Amino acid sequence: MNSAFRTVALVGRYQSEGVGETLAEIAAMLRSRGVHLLLESETADAIACSHAERATIDQIGARADLAVALGGDGTMLGLARSLACYQVPLVGINHGRLGFVTDIALTQWRGALASILDGEYDSEDRSLLTARVLRGEQEVWRQLAMNDVVVSRSSRAGMIELQVHVDGVYMYNQRADGLIVATPTGSTAYALSANGPILHPGLEGLVLVPVAPQALSNRPIALPDSARVAIRVVDGREPRVAGDMQVFSDLQIGDDIIVERAPFKAHFLHPAGYSYFATLRSKLNWHELPILSRP
Amino acid sequence: MNSAFRTVALVGRYQSEGVGETLAEIAAMLRSRGVHLLLESETADAIACSHAERATIDQIGARADLAVALGGDGTMLGLARSLACYQVPLVGINHGRLGFVTDIALTQWRGALASILDGEYDSEDRSLLTARVLRGEQEVWRQLAMNDVVVSRSSRAGMIELQVHVDGVYMYNQRADGLIVATPTGSTAYALSANGPILHPGLEGLVLVPVAPQALSNRPIALPDSARVAIRVVDGREPRVAGDMQVFSDLQIGDDIIVERAPFKAHFLHPAGYSYFATLRSKLNWHELPILSRP
Amino acid sequence: MNSAFRTVALVGRYQSEGVGETLAEIAAMLRSRGVHLLLESETADAIACSHAERATIDQIGARADLAVALGGDGTMLGLARSLACYQVPLVGINHGRLGFVTDIALTQWRGALASILDGEYDSEDRSLLTARVLRGEQEVWRQLAMNDVVVSRSSRAGMIELQVHVDGVYMYNQRADGLIVATPTGSTAYALSANGPILHPGLEGLVLVPVAPQALSNRPIALPDSARVAIRVVDGREPRVAGDMQVFSDLQIGDDIIVERAPFKAHFLHPAGYSYFATLRSKLNWHELPILSRP
Amino acid sequence: MNSAFRTVALVGRYQSEGVGETLAEIAAMLRSRGVHLLLESETADAIACSHAERATIDQIGARADLAVALGGDGTMLGLARSLACYQVPLVGINHGRLGFVTDIALTQWRGALASILDGEYDSEDRSLLTARVLRGEQEVWRQLAMNDVVVSRSSRAGMIELQVHVDGVYMYNQRADGLIVATPTGSTAYALSANGPILHPGLEGLVLVPVAPQALSNRPIALPDSARVAIRVVDGREPRVAGDMQVFSDLQIGDDIIVERAPFKAHFLHPAGYSYFATLRSKLNWHELPILSRP
Repeated sequence: MNSAFRTVALVGRYQSEGVGETLAEIAAMLRSRGVHLLLESETADAIACSHAERATIDQIGARADLAVALGGDGTMLGLARSLACYQVPLVGINHGRLGFVTDIALTQWRGALASILDGEYDSEDRSLLTARVLRGEQEVWRQLAMNDVVVSRSSRAGMIELQVHVDGVYMYNQRADGLIVATPTGSTAYALSANGPILHPGLEGLVLVPVAPQALSNRPIALPDSARVAIRVVDGREPRVAGDMQVFSDLQIGDDIIVERAPFKAHFLHPAGYSYFATLRSKLNWHELPILSRP
Repeated sequence: MNSAFRTVALVGRYQSEGVGETLAEIAAMLRSRGVHLLLESETADAIACSHAERATIDQIGARADLAVALGGDGTMLGLARSLACYQVPLVGINHGRLGFVTDIALTQWRGALASILDGEYDSEDRSLLTARVLRGEQEVWRQLAMNDVVVSRSSRAGMIELQVHVDGVYMYNQRADGLIVATPTGSTAYALSANGPILHPGLEGLVLVPVAPQALSNRPIALPDSARVAIRVVDGREPRVAGDMQVFSDLQIGDDIIVERAPFKAHFLHPAGYSYFATLRSKLNWHELPILSRP
Repeated sequence: MNSAFRTVALVGRYQSEGVGETLAEIAAMLRSRGVHLLLESETADAIACSHAERATIDQIGARADLAVALGGDGTMLGLARSLACYQVPLVGINHGRLGFVTDIALTQWRGALASILDGEYDSEDRSLLTARVLRGEQEVWRQLAMNDVVVSRSSRAGMIELQVHVDGVYMYNQRADGLIVATPTGSTAYALSANGPILHPGLEGLVLVPVAPQALSNRPIALPDSARVAIRVVDGREPRVAGDMQVFSDLQIGDDIIVERAPFKAHFLHPAGYSYFATLRSKLNWHELPILSRP
Repeated sequence: MNSAFRTVALVGRYQSEGVGETLAEIAAMLRSRGVHLLLESETADAIACSHAERATIDQIGARADLAVALGGDGTMLGLARSLACYQVPLVGINHGRLGFVTDIALTQWRGALASILDGEYDSEDRSLLTARVLRGEQEVWRQLAMNDVVVSRSSRAGMIELQVHVDGVYMYNQRADGLIVATPTGSTAYALSANGPILHPGLEGLVLVPVAPQALSNRPIALPDSARVAIRVVDGREPRVAGDMQVFSDLQIGDDIIVERAPFKAHFLHPAGYSYFATLRSKLNWHELPILSRP
């Protein structure tokens, strides 16, 4: 075996039918190649009678040369957040259709994974955000995010008012449903729904996208990803902050949410020949015939 | 006195400085013209030592020929909802800048109100919506709305999924932050923030505007206002429905929110020469010089 | 034969492969049902050795009880404009995928057309616009439009400035690439690309949609379709007006383009059970699974 | 005199009233400080009986330490393009309201210019684009742009179809009114009208913004500014390319438009304490009170 990936972790949290079987097949394929397999503990529960070594996420971070995620983009994002500080490269196999970051289709996992283990892959770095909530002098919450950090109003109130500074310089007061700070990876998630632009992963930027802003001229603004974005909650009922729309925390009036690029990146491995634009075309139906009856 | 407005109600709920004084001046002006004045009960609390007859909203509805609101658009909308079934015409004086529906500026109330009392006014009908929440066979909530009926996700969850039927015909399943059903009056409020079109008040229509929809092709759609819009909550945490973003109710999965045009309209009186487009130009800065540096 | 459609015209202008064969099959089917067939003159050229009676559009208008269009939405729109004043109902068979107005798929034309000839159809009225260009006292151009009337800048200049009045009341000066006045039918064509709303065909409205307006608050505005929209060309190089983006005319500074609802409607026949929303779902991919990786 | 700016050029092309007087005042102020003044030739025509040395743009580029533009953003952009390869820093005084890049108001030019001459300024680099049109092997057009390179349809045709490659990788075929490639500077010009995001000038990016794209999912996409964008004209009548919407060239089907970051940057000098966000707030009315009547 000449692969650099001697210890490979397998993680699959998607609770759909058939995931267990596919996990078992992947595990078997990895073992047949002489790879030492670590099976993430909760994943192991999904595969009855597995002989693989169980490992926690932290053990995976410490020991694995590669982590393979089976599931949807949500699974991959969660794993990427957990492993980011360990710098373990990730491969994403989508259990359903292709995802934005789980770009290996279920029907093609065998060939794709074999190629990657053979060293035929393209590596792509994706930036992450750290969010911290400061309440007075106190840091009361800290969270990594692959996609976005979102500050939102409750559904029990009309709007939230936020005051935003960038690198200590006042930008604006924003009255809106919420404000999204998105990475390039997150630019094709919630931010795109809220009329944000797509940011190519190679762009060293992040984007602030207001959700339903009261002032029509409050447009999305892309900043260098070296920017320190400080968001103060000025007004609003039951405000909350979310990381990747998966992890939530209550906020109080006067809280400051500090969003910055994380000091490390996630490393996604793709089968050689990967094209970010091909993923966009597929996910956004750009390959479709034109849909409007414009002569 | 030859005015048709013999009994006039005065309502002002805006809690800013100076409202009390203006209310007293309006009251004095009305009395000096021989009008019988009804002072809304809560408003009366804002004017120390008033000699005017106090009245509840229902008493105003039963007895007043005209109601004058002093405040912002929110005050006016609340009053319009309360008085709509009584068909009492309304005049809105904005305590601050002009509003969309409180179109008499504070500095001009005296002349404008005198003209209206003299019968020199333009009357404009505005449609309202009724929203009902059905839980199984049971109607568990009912609300009038001047602006909009909004079904939203909580800030503690990613999205809400709604299934929409129009006049019994299936339209779509919508995954989004929420869905706004807006009247023409409401088309310049929350719906405009969410990328909805402006509907002229003379258009017999309503508009469905998704907030941050997951599918990029889920665009605002304007329907005849005879439409019966049925929105079923399919999925989501802590969903809620709001009337005019002022009155809220919790929802449960499986609830149906039925939105229909109310059987009566609100009647807004404007000083003669009123132009809806002039209000738009003022509120949306259309009168401003162009802002972009396009050659 | 008990069909009300004794004389049926057949029109097909789509220059793709195989249209001729399908036209011949439709012609044969119509004749086999004892229908008197009129073959539109240019269409007849596409079918070598046809024995059907040739007819001009005007002859079709005068004599046909029904017109069948084979092609895309463009073909159908052109035919609808030509036949609108004759009130001949139309059926649209799409030679490719479904269209917005050619809602019978090629694979299903036989059953669908048979049903319609048997009287099993839903009839739907669609409004049209008339556009007139006034140069001083002179009317220099007149055009019907099913979709839209568009006033545009040249690609040789930055912007066009237009002054818009509605029913004689000043609305705004608009600096933009152009301004679209669209019917409900046209709301899913060019106007949708320019961020306009969808208007249900049952809504008695039209919508003004600016294309790339300089002022960010210049949003689409829907008006009652009784409105008379007057657009004056204030500034710009090589301005032009288009009907359905198919028929173009040069404009001069100072020209007035008057857009009004036409005095007649087009009548589209659909196989019984037609759903406008089903067409939207199909054309706008609303039936697709959600595309964004939002948790 | 301790200023590093010994030779200063003065340029003013804005043909409004009073520009001549202001130019003369600026010229006098510069001379009073012992600065050697170069008056741009066409500008000199606007000031009768000037004693200053006339200079062409190329002479200014070769000799000036600083160039002062009086006019609007268009004047400044034209000057910046012309002087970019000479690396002469620029100061912009707006003859009217503030501009995006002419950020010194007419009423404040004296103090602002004095400060800059005293060395109290903030310098800001702005990237430029080069556009080249390749017809077969031949380069038939070449243009610098500060704001944007735009490929557009004619107003005599419905759409243009463009095929886009980025760094040699296929991105998409785009059917639209046109496609804008904008710098951060241009992101607040035409691209913003076409629903593009704002790019902070410190972001090393450019943005592709389609104008009225046929496919609703064809969203703006921001790329690293190292990207080589190749746009092929696939279909369309009378296509054209524009630099900063000021310089136009006809295109032919099959032409390739190559857009890349220019090898040099423009240097804008601002009075010390300049804030890009303050300019945005001013130009986009972010300082305004909220405009919608959302409770």
